[in-house]
Amino acid sequence: MFVGIDVGGTNLKAGLVDEQGHLLASRKSPLGVFQGPEKFVNTLAELTMQVARDGGADPEKLEYVGMGIPGAVADGTIVYTCNIPMENVPIGQLFAHYLNVPVLLENDANCAAVGEYFCGAGRGTRDFAVITLGTGIGGGFILNGKLYAGGGMVGEVGHMVICQGGVLCNCGRRGCWETYASATGLIRMTREAMEKSPDSLLWSGSHGGETVSGRTAFLAAEQGDAAAQGVCEEYVQDLATGVINLINILQPEVLAIGGGISNESDAALLYPLRELVERECFARHGGRLTRIVKTELGNDAGIIGAALLRQAI
Amino acid sequence: MFVGIDVGGTNLKAGLVDEQGHLLASRKSPLGVFQGPEKFVNTLAELTMQVARDGGADPEKLEYVGMGIPGAVADGTIVYTCNIPMENVPIGQLFAHYLNVPVLLENDANCAAVGEYFCGAGRGTRDFAVITLGTGIGGGFILNGKLYAGGGMVGEVGHMVICQGGVLCNCGRRGCWETYASATGLIRMTREAMEKSPDSLLWSGSHGGETVSGRTAFLAAEQGDAAAQGVCEEYVQDLATGVINLINILQPEVLAIGGGISNESDAALLYPLRELVERECFARHGGRLTRIVKTELGNDAGIIGAALLRQAI
Repeated sequence: MFVGIDVGGTNLKAGLVDEQGHLLASRKSPLGVFQGPEKFVNTLAELTMQVARDGGADPEKLEYVGMGIPGAVADGTIVYTCNIPMENVPIGQLFAHYLNVPVLLENDANCAAVGEYFCGAGRGTRDFAVITLGTGIGGGFILNGKLYAGGGMVGEVGHMVICQGGVLCNCGRRGCWETYASATGLIRMTREAMEKSPDSLLWSGSHGGETVSGRTAFLAAEQGDAAAQGVCEEYVQDLATGVINLINILQPEVLAIGGGISNESDAALLYPLRELVERECFARHGGRLTRIVKTELGNDAGIIGAALLRQAI
Repeated sequence: MFVGIDVGGTNLKAGLVDEQGHLLASRKSPLGVFQGPEKFVNTLAELTMQVARDGGADPEKLEYVGMGIPGAVADGTIVYTCNIPMENVPIGQLFAHYLNVPVLLENDANCAAVGEYFCGAGRGTRDFAVITLGTGIGGGFILNGKLYAGGGMVGEVGHMVICQGGVLCNCGRRGCWETYASATGLIRMTREAMEKSPDSLLWSGSHGGETVSGRTAFLAAEQGDAAAQGVCEEYVQDLATGVINLINILQPEVLAIGGGISNESDAALLYPLRELVERECFARHGGRLTRIVKTELGNDAGIIGAALLRQAI
């Protein structure tokens, strides 16, 4: 039995998972105000013990606890994370004060990829990529049947420039993929279209611009609004540009798309994306064509992947 | 003992190689007019036997023959190649008519990466990338210590769009990296600068525009020509954009640059490239920084890598 923990910016989620990746029990706890690494690890240990007992397992007999961290990790240590003020924190060592069970750390996007690989959209493949369309765009890769973790900050696919000199990104570059194809990029494009189209349904669909979200354009497009359809078309094209780049570089068997935006209908997102990929990807000249699908595990991917980490490394 | 063969568009190159990757003998043979797969494989077998005997080895006792093919391969079969009219040719089976030795096939860029990994710029690493700046831009990856071959057409890094809607590429997309950062791209940019600068040394350096090459701009820049310096600066920026993209995606320990353009001086190419990468790559926030170097084996990388293929798969 394993416990997987997904360390998010607002919540800690933990699950008890068996060898096959079944989620036997799960718990969520708010991250709260950060009170230092010691307290943070104490919370992780408490959560681990609780969720193990919830599922009828003895915490002392867990094989290990896997943790997905939003940042860079190396050798059981958090090297860096954007959202939680921790640098060079030896989580594994601190955890041993509370519970004598090994700790495996990995980047959270990598954990989600591992979860999908064993129990979701990547089952049965050898080379598998996940991209997550959220505030930014994250990526995780299983290559040759193993998690490719590189130097702790692999898969920053959102920071692939697709448009030199384009929109300024938080990372300092211009034209990064995530400034276009993340939810943030979609919201920006939606607002721009609204400025140009005062009569668009985008306005009524967002309470006069107060609640523009990643859904606004897709909803108005469905109702036939031309400005919204233009936004969606541009969005899918931008999404496809990065997806095709990744396929030309890594040619996985399956590339799965997750994150909030992936919940849009297949007709609006997946099918037009596939059409662009089939038309433009280099492997249409030979070799293997990548299948593009949606992720299957939703928010559980990170917990399950963290719990199954050892099988992937 | 192994024989490695590098199947190029104009020449076949073969070498006898030992376990340590030492090149004990080598031969080159023009590809000539293509007379069908049978004749082609016959030539490969002759070349194998000759180069083995050159190095004092018994061809029948070779452990295997490794071949680097400019195209897509799968299970001992050439699936597709751009330069030689072959599709679905079972090289391994045909080869057995002449010499009873196993044949391993791999893409040529992948073979070059394997050669550099074991005997050149990638020695001692676990995650290693090679990019080759030639007519186009090719790539090969060793990840987690193994060749990442994906579906037979991995590493088409040249067909990563860095500038949406940009220069039309042979592959059908617009703004592919290789339309800017290959020798072909550099020559295009050099010609464009010449049109705008009738007094530039670029003219005298290319016999009035008749012999513009990938070297023209670098040579004139060295002599202080402003137009040429502008071309080189733009070239290195475009090169860096794709290199940083790859690093953000794969974060290898070492990324080695090969191909004709990599022979330019470090001051003109490598140092400004490193500066841009250090300034822009995402891993400056944490995790491992990728070292950028030049390849070391030159034209022998493909032969040596083909000969050492089995160690990499």
